[in-house]
Amino acid sequence: MSQIKAFCFDVFGTVVDWRSGIARDSAIFFERHGLRGLDPLRFADAWRGRYQPAMQACRDGHRPYVRLDILHRENLEHVLAEMRVDLRNIDESELAWLNMAWHRLDPWPDVVAGLTRLKTKYIIAPASNGNIALMVGIAKRSGLPWDAILGAEVTQAYKPAPPAYTRMPEILGLRPEEVCMAAAHNSDLHAAQDCGLATAFIARPGEHGPGQTLDLAPTGDWDIVAQDFKDLASKAGC
Amino acid sequence: MSQIKAFCFDVFGTVVDWRSGIARDSAIFFERHGLRGLDPLRFADAWRGRYQPAMQACRDGHRPYVRLDILHRENLEHVLAEMRVDLRNIDESELAWLNMAWHRLDPWPDVVAGLTRLKTKYIIAPASNGNIALMVGIAKRSGLPWDAILGAEVTQAYKPAPPAYTRMPEILGLRPEEVCMAAAHNSDLHAAQDCGLATAFIARPGEHGPGQTLDLAPTGDWDIVAQDFKDLASKAGC
Repeated sequence: MSQIKAFCFDVFGTVVDWRSGIARDSAIFFERHGLRGLDPLRFADAWRGRYQPAMQACRDGHRPYVRLDILHRENLEHVLAEMRVDLRNIDESELAWLNMAWHRLDPWPDVVAGLTRLKTKYIIAPASNGNIALMVGIAKRSGLPWDAILGAEVTQAYKPAPPAYTRMPEILGLRPEEVCMAAAHNSDLHAAQDCGLATAFIARPGEHGPGQTLDLAPTGDWDIVAQDFKDLASKAGC
Repeated sequence: MSQIKAFCFDVFGTVVDWRSGIARDSAIFFERHGLRGLDPLRFADAWRGRYQPAMQACRDGHRPYVRLDILHRENLEHVLAEMRVDLRNIDESELAWLNMAWHRLDPWPDVVAGLTRLKTKYIIAPASNGNIALMVGIAKRSGLPWDAILGAEVTQAYKPAPPAYTRMPEILGLRPEEVCMAAAHNSDLHAAQDCGLATAFIARPGEHGPGQTLDLAPTGDWDIVAQDFKDLASKAGC
């Protein structure tokens, strides 16, 4: 703990509430296009459901690194088609607007205060599978005070592939144990720990709505377990 | 001008006063090691003098991309040897400390105020040949409020190679003309303009000390010419 010099954060779920944000903008989109039968929350889950499989092709080397903005757009078209929405009736600019909903996600209420405190003593950066423009879009809208944008576009690797973790300390000029991966997902922390990084777990029991069963509690031997980002700042001595 | 959405900044010379900063820490190093014959300002010029040739091997493809921290260290050893300093008498930790002088450079006095205003309306990022850790080190020490760290380590290209410019709008999800390269060096702006970026010139007549002859005035048709970063913010409507 005392050797940590940087905190790198998972973003979707840990920093931002993607489910409510995607549902909010999807509801606007459905209303605008008369798509009355579609449920915005189910739609958000379905869109997000294609996230891991889409990245897998890049992880497996079947496809070079592709920005998440592009994967999100491909997944959007698939999900809309699956829900029998005729894409020929929808303007390109409207699809582009909905795809940008990922840039308009709101942070959980404790995030800005916690990050602002952590930044006084540590380097803070997102370590997300989201691309740089996506991270900058979210940050500028809500005032997330990142020191740098790390993550998939910088490491050219999608978590949980090891280079997504090992390249962060290399880039920051730090030893692995000086970088702490902070996430609401135990699987992310297991992969980070296997690469020698320190780990911090912050539960986000609302990420998947009321039915959430996964990641309600820490399942590994993490260096820090915090209630939220303010608690994380306190536990990190800020 | 009205279409600009992001300002990307050259750093060494434009944002920070590298010559005074390197001379300051070199003087401490010389004193500590009894190197009384060496002139800190001449040493700073000699160390910086090896900067362009060192990157040229990467630009030419004779060497893969190497972080500037590493090139600085190689150059440091060359310059000290050239000045007949026996490196065997100097601890590794002392050389590492001097090499980190580039992380401890101070911004020109108008920079923090100007960037803070620009950040309210634009994405602001360094577009330096310096690596990410080097940019973060400088920024955290002085409170430079970057939205992201771009530059050579992200584009994997050293300016003035075209990908160092063209990859910035791609990464930010913007058109080239929506990104403005801001620099105190006309050559940097010529290269950026050739890639379709907007351009802003800010003279730094003190960069090379009292004998400076280059870059005292704009030599191209730049979109903005500003006296300093505060003037740049005003001209950009902030």
